Amino acid sequence: MKGKFITFEGCEGSGKSTQIRLLSERLTKEGICHIVTREPGGSDVAEQIRTVILNKNNSAMCDECEALLYAAARIQHLTEIVKPALDKGMLVLCDRYVDSSFAYQGCARGLGMEFVADINACALEQFPPDLTLFLDISPKAAFDRKHGADLNDRMEREGLAFHNKVYEGYLSLAERYPRIVRVQCGGTKYETSEIIYKLLKEKGII
Amino acid sequence: MKGKFITFEGCEGSGKSTQIRLLSERLTKEGICHIVTREPGGSDVAEQIRTVILNKNNSAMCDECEALLYAAARIQHLTEIVKPALDKGMLVLCDRYVDSSFAYQGCARGLGMEFVADINACALEQFPPDLTLFLDISPKAAFDRKHGADLNDRMEREGLAFHNKVYEGYLSLAERYPRIVRVQCGGTKYETSEIIYKLLKEKGII
Repeated sequence: MKGKFITFEGCEGSGKSTQIRLLSERLTKEGICHIVTREPGGSDVAEQIRTVILNKNNSAMCDECEALLYAAARIQHLTEIVKPALDKGMLVLCDRYVDSSFAYQGCARGLGMEFVADINACALEQFPPDLTLFLDISPKAAFDRKHGADLNDRMEREGLAFHNKVYEGYLSLAERYPRIVRVQCGGTKYETSEIIYKLLKEKGII
Repeated sequence: MKGKFITFEGCEGSGKSTQIRLLSERLTKEGICHIVTREPGGSDVAEQIRTVILNKNNSAMCDECEALLYAAARIQHLTEIVKPALDKGMLVLCDRYVDSSFAYQGCARGLGMEFVADINACALEQFPPDLTLFLDISPKAAFDRKHGADLNDRMEREGLAFHNKVYEGYLSLAERYPRIVRVQCGGTKYETSEIIYKLLKEKGII
């Protein structure tokens, strides 16, 4: 039986990696076979691409180049990490996927959804997520919670106006695609984790 | 007046860089303003991408990732190097361009011409070459002439069957697109250079 592919989306500081860790710990206790991975990166080649993308000195990088690098890292990560795990019937928890490209490059950078869909067609057609959890917290609240942006990260260095556009992008994606579920993150991390766990139960994923 | 964009294509060892050098020397003597550049690479960000593409240790790289990396390096190179030169009215001599992706990834890797066209749409629409010179020499003859392949280069390491598919790809591209001119390379490098110089004169490019 093919495994399930669960992607986590949200703005910087929305708590994706924390929530994935909490869920993973619970799944491990329950003996549910799963892997935790992330984009961009997750494999040797994809990590090399990640280094180029996030290097803060690469301020000359044009928006189309950035979007194509994300797409390149994505298909490599799918091929090397995600596909073998799904083929073994494992649950795959992935920190960011193609919706990040829609929100960041398509919406916030202004490249348009069609461009992003075109360059990610091979990923989306072969690996549509079974469920996408959008951790819904505004960029302002998220940066406040993590005490500001990581200035060594080329994406986090962008100003609040940029991150607000990303957030708006996510909101419109969540309206458009039924596979995307908005997870309210107003409570403690443990409360949010409980919401996510129950969602996966309800959807019959675990 | 906008400058002209001339691309040089051909298999490994077909003499592209030699021919570009000989042409550039002649143009310099005649006082014709031009730049010489190459793909993948040509700018700082694009060279970082080149390093990932050609690294011989990256044997795990999937074909789609390779094609997307070439497309990423391409649009970056166009934005940083080619566009500013064309805007100044300069002649741009470029070692490889999108036809390399058609021949190598679309044909030899088997990804198909449509896939390559889709991920390179922004490059091709904004920067169609004014003329493409295909240096027509078979891979066997080319490798014999350069005494074998460079085994530190991930593309050159591919076997002769692969490079023959690339060559066939170029031949079919040359039949399809009138902008591509086949340059017979049977003579000495100076004879080939003379053919190229005359071609540019005939086409009104210089």
